Amino acid sequence: MSIYKTDSSLKSWVSVPSGSDFPIQNLPYGIFQPKGHSPRAGVAIGNQILDLAALYNQGFLSDCGLPESNPFSSETLNTYMALGRTVWTSVRARLTELLSEGNTTIQNKPELFYEQQEVDMLMPVSVPDYTDFYSSLEHASNVGKMFRPDQPPLLPNWKHMPIGYHGRASSIYVSGTPFHRPKGQTKPPTAEKPSYGPSRQLDIELEMAFIVGTGNDLGTSISTENAEDHIFGLVLFNDYSARDLQSWEYVPLGPFLGKNFFSSVSPWVVTLDALEPFRVQGPVQDEPVLDYLKFTGEKSYDIQLDVFLTPENGKESKICHSNHKYLYWNMAQQLAHHTVNGCNMRTGDMCGSGTISAPYEGGFGSMLELSWRGTKPIALEDGNTRTFIEDFDTITFRGYCEKEGLRIGFGEVVNKILPSV
Amino acid sequence: MSIYKTDSSLKSWVSVPSGSDFPIQNLPYGIFQPKGHSPRAGVAIGNQILDLAALYNQGFLSDCGLPESNPFSSETLNTYMALGRTVWTSVRARLTELLSEGNTTIQNKPELFYEQQEVDMLMPVSVPDYTDFYSSLEHASNVGKMFRPDQPPLLPNWKHMPIGYHGRASSIYVSGTPFHRPKGQTKPPTAEKPSYGPSRQLDIELEMAFIVGTGNDLGTSISTENAEDHIFGLVLFNDYSARDLQSWEYVPLGPFLGKNFFSSVSPWVVTLDALEPFRVQGPVQDEPVLDYLKFTGEKSYDIQLDVFLTPENGKESKICHSNHKYLYWNMAQQLAHHTVNGCNMRTGDMCGSGTISAPYEGGFGSMLELSWRGTKPIALEDGNTRTFIEDFDTITFRGYCEKEGLRIGFGEVVNKILPSV
Repeated sequence: MSIYKTDSSLKSWVSVPSGSDFPIQNLPYGIFQPKGHSPRAGVAIGNQILDLAALYNQGFLSDCGLPESNPFSSETLNTYMALGRTVWTSVRARLTELLSEGNTTIQNKPELFYEQQEVDMLMPVSVPDYTDFYSSLEHASNVGKMFRPDQPPLLPNWKHMPIGYHGRASSIYVSGTPFHRPKGQTKPPTAEKPSYGPSRQLDIELEMAFIVGTGNDLGTSISTENAEDHIFGLVLFNDYSARDLQSWEYVPLGPFLGKNFFSSVSPWVVTLDALEPFRVQGPVQDEPVLDYLKFTGEKSYDIQLDVFLTPENGKESKICHSNHKYLYWNMAQQLAHHTVNGCNMRTGDMCGSGTISAPYEGGFGSMLELSWRGTKPIALEDGNTRTFIEDFDTITFRGYCEKEGLRIGFGEVVNKILPSV
Repeated sequence: MSIYKTDSSLKSWVSVPSGSDFPIQNLPYGIFQPKGHSPRAGVAIGNQILDLAALYNQGFLSDCGLPESNPFSSETLNTYMALGRTVWTSVRARLTELLSEGNTTIQNKPELFYEQQEVDMLMPVSVPDYTDFYSSLEHASNVGKMFRPDQPPLLPNWKHMPIGYHGRASSIYVSGTPFHRPKGQTKPPTAEKPSYGPSRQLDIELEMAFIVGTGNDLGTSISTENAEDHIFGLVLFNDYSARDLQSWEYVPLGPFLGKNFFSSVSPWVVTLDALEPFRVQGPVQDEPVLDYLKFTGEKSYDIQLDVFLTPENGKESKICHSNHKYLYWNMAQQLAHHTVNGCNMRTGDMCGSGTISAPYEGGFGSMLELSWRGTKPIALEDGNTRTFIEDFDTITFRGYCEKEGLRIGFGEVVNKILPSV
């Protein structure tokens, strides 16, 4: 794997406020639109964005293996991502050089920079296919305990493969997009017939998603060893779920309308290069796996994850603190499994982790688990309680890695929930 | 709904062989590539293709509401489909006029026509999202009887909503594409541990798919009354399935690797206008449905469907004869259900019907059902038998409507299955 790991003590000549998610060691990619201009790709640095389309046009990205047509003058990162890991690493090295303390090459070029608060952030990638995994042992066990109390919490297949299913790509929107509470068909166990109306069990799912940079041909597979070469980076992912729609529809073919009304991602894609210092060993996989799922090295990441709920005109309350490192199945295993049958991945494909629940109560990644199916209301800072999301609530996910003074952040994904139409 | 229904006695000046799938009343759309030229859109007529890109360039499609940029000079039909039903109807009326017996406008323009056998047919549409329904009562009942013999064959939700799930768009390929038998993880009930290897239960699913021409905004819904205005047309669809992978992985989140290795469609999209004479009443829905699933009029279609299996160097055997009209849930109900929660559909989205099984033994749409889970081998013409697909078998679906001398055909979807890599 071609990696450009930035020295953790390096500083940028661009001012980076203390506690910023975006030091020179991060350089996440996004698509932004300055007022009155067309969308283009940029990297975040401190409170600013470096305009990659303009940087390319001024010739500062030559010798990075980029094509003759500007890959950053685009409404998505897909063209750039398709160029592959060697190019990503070359560009990262050049950007690091240009932004390093002491380098004056673009210091007198304010036209290359925008204030983050003055632009609109757009969906960073076009998603051809979206898959959602179910890779948290704690989440799968909690769900099992709640819905099948008389059986073992984990199903027999769960420790043998990263269980996943296909989701809906059309309804994935960038952070900041509000959405209306979905309506649909529900039937509580006590009701004789189903009825139609707004969901009464609207929930979050705390997830992260990885984005495929380069895919594979139909009929070929990606090994756990090579998987990370295919992964461009990660985003925060809120897979909103209507539990009452889901529980009535999902047998035998899985979740459908209970999930496909809306999902949301953070606008900045943090690369694997940036996450390199935060590799850790994942949980012990105590059930032996088949060869194609075996891996070597540290393939999990120590990424702290917080969920906040803010009632209308109310106070923000943290309702969950979890960590990406608790996921039982890692991304390399997910990608190897997804392609073991020859399924072809394409640039931009998004793979959700599944709800990331920690092995302690305040670390469950859904309100279903936090309120234990509505039996334990979640206390908010302002005295309110919640079992599921109420109208006009705002949900915010934040994610960050921190170690020895280095902070690599993901920013946030935030959505306000509006009443049913 | 804006419809252009062609007089069933109308003839074309283009020669249409007896029994052809493509009389002037059909005019299905496809994407074709003449040798040494770029792909473009065309309509089939007899054994020929009318080049719509060239027809547009020569000015014969003016006043049809088409844009200034040629929508047919494209690798997919998506640009044209997005223009909407009024434009589709106008273009159909113009094409019918130009191709009608007695009209000489383009009779002296051989450069507008290609022989079908001299060009390559490409994937007709780009598919942003693919959904598969499960709308045949007979198929769902057969599966229930086989896998849950001690319970009612239909699950409680089945007659209340068109059950569906999200599938994989990347691995949908046009007819003629061969593919390799998928490998993966399986665990027969008698085995203690799962193992890895080629699927031993590779199966077909006889389906048709409708293609969304125009979608809906996030948060809005499509009614059963308006649904057909959003549907551009239908194709034959073979949703290849690895039953052994599927049965081990699918609880609780549905089919994944058992389905996403390969699916295939016929190259010609037959429009709803062309199918208008073949509307019929569907099966009686004896369980009352919620208001959003109610509909008026004939919303099913009498489309005959045949499945053929041809062993390597062997004889073609018809192994199934079914009909689209047996589907319990119609397309208008499927689209209304899919969007009832505000899920947004997009131009090119493909919705599979689910396996179309008839209410008689030779009409089951999968080998799983035809061989009753391998217990009743399927007899072939040449003395061979099959329970599932063997290496080097060729599978062909054909579909057609016939009434009072009028035949509207779908052509075929054909694939050869190669051994695992």
